[in-house]
Amino acid sequence: MIDVLVIGGGVAGFVSAINAKQFYPQKRVVLIEKNPKKLVPCGIPYIFNTFSIDDDLMNLEKKLKKHGVELIEDEIKEIDFQNKEAIANEKYKFDKLIIATGSKPKIPPIQGIKNAYFIKKEYDYLKNLLEKTKNAKNITIIGGGFIGLEVADELAKNGKNIMLIEMMKNILPNSFDEDFSKKAQESLHKNITLKLNARVEEIGENYVLVDDEKIASDLTIVTTGFSPNTEFLDVEKNEFGFIKTDEYLRVKKDIFAVGDCVEHKEFFTANPTPLMLASTAAFDARVAAANLYSLQIIRHNKDSLNIYSTVIGDKVFAAVGITENMAKKEGFEVIVTKAKSYNTHPPKFSHSTDVEVKLIFSKKDLYLLGAQIVGGISTGEMINILGLAIQKNATASDLYTMQIGTHPLLTPPPTLYPIAVAAGKALV
Amino acid sequence: MIDVLVIGGGVAGFVSAINAKQFYPQKRVVLIEKNPKKLVPCGIPYIFNTFSIDDDLMNLEKKLKKHGVELIEDEIKEIDFQNKEAIANEKYKFDKLIIATGSKPKIPPIQGIKNAYFIKKEYDYLKNLLEKTKNAKNITIIGGGFIGLEVADELAKNGKNIMLIEMMKNILPNSFDEDFSKKAQESLHKNITLKLNARVEEIGENYVLVDDEKIASDLTIVTTGFSPNTEFLDVEKNEFGFIKTDEYLRVKKDIFAVGDCVEHKEFFTANPTPLMLASTAAFDARVAAANLYSLQIIRHNKDSLNIYSTVIGDKVFAAVGITENMAKKEGFEVIVTKAKSYNTHPPKFSHSTDVEVKLIFSKKDLYLLGAQIVGGISTGEMINILGLAIQKNATASDLYTMQIGTHPLLTPPPTLYPIAVAAGKALV
Repeated sequence: MIDVLVIGGGVAGFVSAINAKQFYPQKRVVLIEKNPKKLVPCGIPYIFNTFSIDDDLMNLEKKLKKHGVELIEDEIKEIDFQNKEAIANEKYKFDKLIIATGSKPKIPPIQGIKNAYFIKKEYDYLKNLLEKTKNAKNITIIGGGFIGLEVADELAKNGKNIMLIEMMKNILPNSFDEDFSKKAQESLHKNITLKLNARVEEIGENYVLVDDEKIASDLTIVTTGFSPNTEFLDVEKNEFGFIKTDEYLRVKKDIFAVGDCVEHKEFFTANPTPLMLASTAAFDARVAAANLYSLQIIRHNKDSLNIYSTVIGDKVFAAVGITENMAKKEGFEVIVTKAKSYNTHPPKFSHSTDVEVKLIFSKKDLYLLGAQIVGGISTGEMINILGLAIQKNATASDLYTMQIGTHPLLTPPPTLYPIAVAAGKALV
Repeated sequence: MIDVLVIGGGVAGFVSAINAKQFYPQKRVVLIEKNPKKLVPCGIPYIFNTFSIDDDLMNLEKKLKKHGVELIEDEIKEIDFQNKEAIANEKYKFDKLIIATGSKPKIPPIQGIKNAYFIKKEYDYLKNLLEKTKNAKNITIIGGGFIGLEVADELAKNGKNIMLIEMMKNILPNSFDEDFSKKAQESLHKNITLKLNARVEEIGENYVLVDDEKIASDLTIVTTGFSPNTEFLDVEKNEFGFIKTDEYLRVKKDIFAVGDCVEHKEFFTANPTPLMLASTAAFDARVAAANLYSLQIIRHNKDSLNIYSTVIGDKVFAAVGITENMAKKEGFEVIVTKAKSYNTHPPKFSHSTDVEVKLIFSKKDLYLLGAQIVGGISTGEMINILGLAIQKNATASDLYTMQIGTHPLLTPPPTLYPIAVAAGKALV
């Protein structure tokens, strides 16, 4: 008998298991994973230049053991919810179940798609793809979302000629408004050629056909999103196959689901959002694990907050909440302000690079709805300040009167700290 | 007639003036400064190695002009509060007054103090000190606070032999507990020799006498704190000369005071705290400026939050709120937790350095009271997440269920994001 059975050894499964054990140390916690040779998922794009694929491997068994969690290598084929049994080569009886089966690349209906590669989360597959990139000079990447951009950036820095193809009129259209998307486009590595508003008609062995133009492509990688691994699960799902849960990630009595396989709703609009981030998975897992046996850790933020950061060329781009564009489409009345500063100070110091912050507030009550930042390395944590601000219902006034710490080598100057300055503009 | 008169062109004065103009664009805002050749104050320690003193100069007149503020070069000698006149070479009639006269180094009563240098905020003085450091091989720094450490670190990196002398048993005793102070000590540059629990008895021209030991010192710099520039002001002050204000920085009707010259009270204990940070000055200034003519921007955080970050050797140290030590001394019952992670991920990636977070919560209601972090560059913004958390009354549960964004090149991993992990430990 297993007290807590976790299916899947990705971020959601791993964080669920170790937190379940932390909160309920007397319980037997078991994680089942069919292929324990796991990669750190967010690190995958960076195996193409920044670090080696083996650097991205994590020793799942050792890490779980350290936290008192057992690992079983097996593949669950079915779950008998009636008898509380997970069925694989063996049957595993459980008391509580956490489904963390993750996601896999979507296969878009493009002619010749069999000639394309995907960013799967599988070591052997990626090892082979990495080999293939070595002999490729011209590489096409289809899909200008975060993964596509990161892989393009890495391969470009590695000396490849990259053709990056995006259907929409801007890259990262769900995370950034046009002004920031344009900045991201300007920041693309010189080896990247971007095609926007473009439709791929066919993928050949050594070409792609885009809007009737035949483009040489030694290797084509498709990064058009992921879909949940939920086919074998007989639970309530939405039209895209994401498992429906409540805000404590409960599917039904004693059954939880967390991470990429779960339907997430956008923080402000409550619309389903195809959010598949490791950080969201870890969040889900923490909430579910702590609340397995009783609702002891209250979740105040009922829905999922998009928080992204990435590196494009030599700049960092980050976003949280909803964009100005999305806010307007949903009917929010907004005030949008911007402030520009430097990531270190004084600005004449040669290491200083620009930081620009855009804040989106609701017009009447001045709640922060979203933010976008372009800057240096610390942008990755600066966006988390604004993420917490949203989760704690901060208004422009709260951000204008926020006490902060600053340092010449680490942050923008106190005089022009861009969050405070942009918030101040919304108050005038 | 001047609508808003600001005395002093440091951070507090500058931010007051530009925000006064932003919130009240119809008003005439004038800043009076006796010496407009101002340095960016937090940058001063870094003129000894990282950048040049001229890089740290700011063009006050140009910056003020850009924001519609007039600069007058003059020295206020007296204020006639009755007639609302500031008296210098000329008399300036005002409607609202913002006092931002800043601070100057404290002169400790040590024999031979005339042989020592100080970190004054004056260009010509510092230019001369910089020249003196060039011919000095052995430099003594008296005072192991932030400024002392930063100057020591810079001069050490510049190849000098540094003797750093601190009276207390740890460096940075007000900001870090012993465990983190020790980490800071271990991180000191190899050219720095640290003497703790040490008392300086005399400063000679080429030596210092410390606990009866005569130590060769070509140059001695004293960094034992600052005192407010308030002698000429006939207003209510505390025993150390800091001006007393209310939470909107009002001294009396139409008179405000902001920045280093003001008495600050610690966020949790309401004890007076000798907080003299540029970031605190900028905060004071924003609150005062917006509320000059009516209380339109409510201040929710009644008292001043200590938020610090600095670089020691190759590590970043940051702290916010009260230390475990201070909390216990004040009678708080606390839970203290720690979590260790990496500043980027996967950890095998060679650029990853350790990040360790220490959180101090009140025992019963689990409010965050303070935090200490040692890590990489982004630590400077990570401490601001915890600063906002304190200001928005976050509990361990809020931090455990905080949705965050992560990225391999920018942040700790989502699985082990140290704030969430440390918060989780407090909930078990």
